[in-house]
Amino acid sequence: MVTTPSPPRSSCPIDFGLEIFGDQWTLLVLRDLLIQQKRTFREFQSSDEGIASNILSERLKRLEACGLITRAASPTDGRVMLYSPTEAARDLIPVLVEMSYWGATHDPATGAPAAFKAAYRADRVGLIASIRAGKDPSQIG
Amino acid sequence: MVTTPSPPRSSCPIDFGLEIFGDQWTLLVLRDLLIQQKRTFREFQSSDEGIASNILSERLKRLEACGLITRAASPTDGRVMLYSPTEAARDLIPVLVEMSYWGATHDPATGAPAAFKAAYRADRVGLIASIRAGKDPSQIG
Repeated sequence: MVTTPSPPRSSCPIDFGLEIFGDQWTLLVLRDLLIQQKRTFREFQSSDEGIASNILSERLKRLEACGLITRAASPTDGRVMLYSPTEAARDLIPVLVEMSYWGATHDPATGAPAAFKAAYRADRVGLIASIRAGKDPSQIG
Repeated sequence: MVTTPSPPRSSCPIDFGLEIFGDQWTLLVLRDLLIQQKRTFREFQSSDEGIASNILSERLKRLEACGLITRAASPTDGRVMLYSPTEAARDLIPVLVEMSYWGATHDPATGAPAAFKAAYRADRVGLIASIRAGKDPSQIG
């Protein structure tokens, strides 16, 4: 069950999502969680964009409160928390794939691998399914 | 040609887009421009979310500077400015359609018309093409 932090200001389905993830840092955390398959605080913190630890901490709490992530101690090291996407979060993979394709198309200096654009064009549904199944993200970008 | 307001902090194609549109108000303006087919300052201002005029003004300037909108005086009333999406902006329609489908799926109180979800499921590519062609947005949500 997905809930917004504050009541949506309209009944628009786009605004509903934006109430939860309508900011740059939250969308980067969702990218790391859903595409890069990152699971720990330290992994999220290591991303190139350099998210501050207080912002990361706040965004993870908010995503958990909204029903997009769950949190559990690592079975191999109880001091480490693992953050996992819920099914509702996984349903956002198509949004991120479309954002990625847009950036890969319009940024002349993009770091997106050519394989990503080729995979999108050849079989977008299959690409989304393979990301959902946790495929090696280096093949995706 | 699309340019980011400041240099991207990584070569990630998602971050490239987020540098331009990674905030709630910009994404709502893009929704109004690309899906609701709004073209004037007054039309953008009338949306249910109640964007403040100074924020709207700043976001329109930023989208123009980034190459996502063009601005021209209305041919019927030279005092009215018309804002139009560039081709690069139209390429964001799939991002907004996916956001809309996510919200329509996960918000129990969604205002999205049932026709939108049905159209997405039956023919996503055709739905995107019809939005791109400026189809009556009341059929889309």
